[in-house]
Amino acid sequence: MSKVRIVIAGPRGNMGKEAVNMVVHTDDFELVATVDSKHDGMKLSELDGFHQVEVPIYTDMQRCFEENQVDVLIDLTAPAFGRKHMEIAFSNGVRPVVGTTGFTDEDITQLRGLAEEKGLGAIIAPNFAIGAILMMKFSQVAAKYMPDVEIIEQHHDRKLDAPSGTAVKTAQLISEVREQKTQGHPNEKEELQGARGADFEGMRIHSVRLPGRVAHQEVIFGGDGQTLTIRHDSINRTSFMPGVKLAVESVLRIDTLVYGLEHIIE
Amino acid sequence: MSKVRIVIAGPRGNMGKEAVNMVVHTDDFELVATVDSKHDGMKLSELDGFHQVEVPIYTDMQRCFEENQVDVLIDLTAPAFGRKHMEIAFSNGVRPVVGTTGFTDEDITQLRGLAEEKGLGAIIAPNFAIGAILMMKFSQVAAKYMPDVEIIEQHHDRKLDAPSGTAVKTAQLISEVREQKTQGHPNEKEELQGARGADFEGMRIHSVRLPGRVAHQEVIFGGDGQTLTIRHDSINRTSFMPGVKLAVESVLRIDTLVYGLEHIIE
Amino acid sequence: MSKVRIVIAGPRGNMGKEAVNMVVHTDDFELVATVDSKHDGMKLSELDGFHQVEVPIYTDMQRCFEENQVDVLIDLTAPAFGRKHMEIAFSNGVRPVVGTTGFTDEDITQLRGLAEEKGLGAIIAPNFAIGAILMMKFSQVAAKYMPDVEIIEQHHDRKLDAPSGTAVKTAQLISEVREQKTQGHPNEKEELQGARGADFEGMRIHSVRLPGRVAHQEVIFGGDGQTLTIRHDSINRTSFMPGVKLAVESVLRIDTLVYGLEHIIE
Amino acid sequence: MSKVRIVIAGPRGNMGKEAVNMVVHTDDFELVATVDSKHDGMKLSELDGFHQVEVPIYTDMQRCFEENQVDVLIDLTAPAFGRKHMEIAFSNGVRPVVGTTGFTDEDITQLRGLAEEKGLGAIIAPNFAIGAILMMKFSQVAAKYMPDVEIIEQHHDRKLDAPSGTAVKTAQLISEVREQKTQGHPNEKEELQGARGADFEGMRIHSVRLPGRVAHQEVIFGGDGQTLTIRHDSINRTSFMPGVKLAVESVLRIDTLVYGLEHIIE
Repeated sequence: MSKVRIVIAGPRGNMGKEAVNMVVHTDDFELVATVDSKHDGMKLSELDGFHQVEVPIYTDMQRCFEENQVDVLIDLTAPAFGRKHMEIAFSNGVRPVVGTTGFTDEDITQLRGLAEEKGLGAIIAPNFAIGAILMMKFSQVAAKYMPDVEIIEQHHDRKLDAPSGTAVKTAQLISEVREQKTQGHPNEKEELQGARGADFEGMRIHSVRLPGRVAHQEVIFGGDGQTLTIRHDSINRTSFMPGVKLAVESVLRIDTLVYGLEHIIE
Repeated sequence: MSKVRIVIAGPRGNMGKEAVNMVVHTDDFELVATVDSKHDGMKLSELDGFHQVEVPIYTDMQRCFEENQVDVLIDLTAPAFGRKHMEIAFSNGVRPVVGTTGFTDEDITQLRGLAEEKGLGAIIAPNFAIGAILMMKFSQVAAKYMPDVEIIEQHHDRKLDAPSGTAVKTAQLISEVREQKTQGHPNEKEELQGARGADFEGMRIHSVRLPGRVAHQEVIFGGDGQTLTIRHDSINRTSFMPGVKLAVESVLRIDTLVYGLEHIIE
Repeated sequence: MSKVRIVIAGPRGNMGKEAVNMVVHTDDFELVATVDSKHDGMKLSELDGFHQVEVPIYTDMQRCFEENQVDVLIDLTAPAFGRKHMEIAFSNGVRPVVGTTGFTDEDITQLRGLAEEKGLGAIIAPNFAIGAILMMKFSQVAAKYMPDVEIIEQHHDRKLDAPSGTAVKTAQLISEVREQKTQGHPNEKEELQGARGADFEGMRIHSVRLPGRVAHQEVIFGGDGQTLTIRHDSINRTSFMPGVKLAVESVLRIDTLVYGLEHIIE
Repeated sequence: MSKVRIVIAGPRGNMGKEAVNMVVHTDDFELVATVDSKHDGMKLSELDGFHQVEVPIYTDMQRCFEENQVDVLIDLTAPAFGRKHMEIAFSNGVRPVVGTTGFTDEDITQLRGLAEEKGLGAIIAPNFAIGAILMMKFSQVAAKYMPDVEIIEQHHDRKLDAPSGTAVKTAQLISEVREQKTQGHPNEKEELQGARGADFEGMRIHSVRLPGRVAHQEVIFGGDGQTLTIRHDSINRTSFMPGVKLAVESVLRIDTLVYGLEHIIE
């Protein structure tokens, strides 16, 4: 089997660097070029941190696809470019794996139309952390059988918002399937305000902020005499790469646009 | 909708007592009789611990089914009786939910044949703890994406065997799907023998035995920069009742024999 | 060495039953009598649940001490009786171990005066769970070195108050020693109210309420690159007996009144 | 109060870099010079990673102390130099805080003699992670009251030895105080060899090795109806700096040599 020929857009970002590293170290993958906002015509190896990665840099994605045989585009740039990059990919027969956010429902409908018209797979994934996606997916299933649930998420103490986006996303997924219910004793009383956490459709979410933590979440399901806990701990960005790799492998086998890695995982 | 008419075999056992309690407290269920090895002709309420449960006790299951309209048999007796009880149930048009163990593959094939011939549902469940079943089911899925896994189970210190049956069952389910691999550093060295736990096809299982623990297991999946942990804690037998209830509800909707509650849960 | 001769007041309560069981099964202890609000003159063995415990029941504590040689009184009655029982014990040369609450500061000062006057040890312990006491004691030490702390307590969903008394007590003990500080990012924003929990002098307390939980607490200390977690799990009342036993052993070696088991543990 | 004048030996190592960073960012501390095996006469700011740290580098520690007013030496070099560096420090009236290992009992006795003769404080600390030290210290106390204990340590899967040094050290500290006992059921049977972990004087130690883990340990104490768990999670080397800082502050207040940060923490 020939290798999957890959272009990475946005190689200098945090995710981009990890993706370059992942692709060059994966046997079945081949990095053929990168697309960047500058450094046109240079080799990636000439930039800091890409020792011996001898692939060309293009600032023009269209030209990149014309001059190289490409199977998959990994786009790790910025929300402003996601849609345009996907359109260029489709028109060149390239399957996009996109990590940027900011797509509207209309964007997705139109892009899915384009993908299906061309018979090309495409994946947009706001979150590449497989562990987090599994946690959310399993939580949705568990809530059908154990509808009493609380979420505790823990992050470093420089985080501004509480609860985390993942905690809210998890609670939304659960509320799609679980019977409506309010938890705790009907007459329970908060002697100290806030003790019982945030209320999300009857579920409770608790946000811990401490130095020494990175990004953690546990979803606890309670039933008579038992509890089931699903916990994800993330300590750095390398945790996204197995998800990017899975997306590249999956995008070759589909002929429509999939939004969210959870729909790839069975 | 009329209530589900239920007979419980083995009402005086630990599980049986909980089951009687569950059925009489479930709105859609009705306990019509019990089958016991003694006390024929008495009311259950005459026995210790069944205050006001005015249902008859039969020692003859066939006669019980002849004299009552029964939808479902919950059999919580002993392995020796499981097969015979199922056959009597089938011949009376009753759907069995069986919690005993000891069925051979041949038993199951023959009983499934009987069930399908009569167009009756039947469920045999060696484990009714929904949380434990979800843990095993999720572990099997997670291992496909995060193949590095270790299992830590914790039980009270009066337990004789290590590892627990649930830990071994979990490891078996995982090994059905994960790529074969040996974990840890290839040159790792146990300075103290046993530190790295038991080896099950490359996975490691650790058994903790302490007073103050009841029955707990966590399955930890490791990947670059992240871990996913699925944990089940069980503190008493009431934890089995939601599983028994689910089995009763499910057995009405199927027309074959299902072995293992994991095949009911989606 | 002769055995410690013990009287238990309140043998029929939940704690009392466990205490009777503990004393009769401890080699160095001897149960000589019990004091109860009724059943004067009967043997304990005549009551339900005290099979073969052939000790007399007194309704009059004074007479009990006159008719028996007693070293230690274990008082597990009710707040209303605690003080009077201690005075009777002191006047008979008996050392009290008291598990009731409701003592005022003035009560304690006066009772300590009595104890020292007689040269008798006495222990009042609102909480006999050694694990919980160790958790609180260690938390107070850790906070001196790692002042960022959050408390997560988990209880069954029939509990009315949040946070738990133990969580508040822990936070109070910590606030006695830690530098005043407010945790989390100064500009952090609760997108859902209550997410960051209750504020206790800058610390955060989170209360989880779920079926399947009993009584659990973890105290998490965060520092650069590390966290220290101290967790106590309690699943039933037997967890109090090692504390009662320790109190009996300790009360023989002191000649003043100690309030709180934490002052016995070194 | 004037600032504490500090010299760091070994500034280019992993720990050294963190220590330079910690000292220049601590209000009460002043970095006056560094001692290195090369770069004599240069400024630290001329080396990579020490932007704007304008302190001189000496290869000769004696000359460094002659030319500067120094209160404390932080020695993060190598075992071979620890003893000699301490002697030079003592003879110049400088208090050493030493992070190297490899001291014999005789070394320590002699160096303590020197320290006391000069009336100077000195601290040798094989482990600066305050959280880990608190975990070990608390474990030793807890084991007196809850003698049933198991240790689970988790590290990344590139670690060669099992169990970890910290796990063994913890078990040693516990065995100094706890009654000798073998845990688990006397007739327990390992169906899979190694399941019950390594045996250390009757305690059990379990070593988990997984990608995504860094350095973690939990010590679990079991008693009737309760467990107490003390857990330390370390995710990077910054976790050592609070310990170094505490050692610097403490060494000014003592006039003998202390071996092990646990003897500083009260």
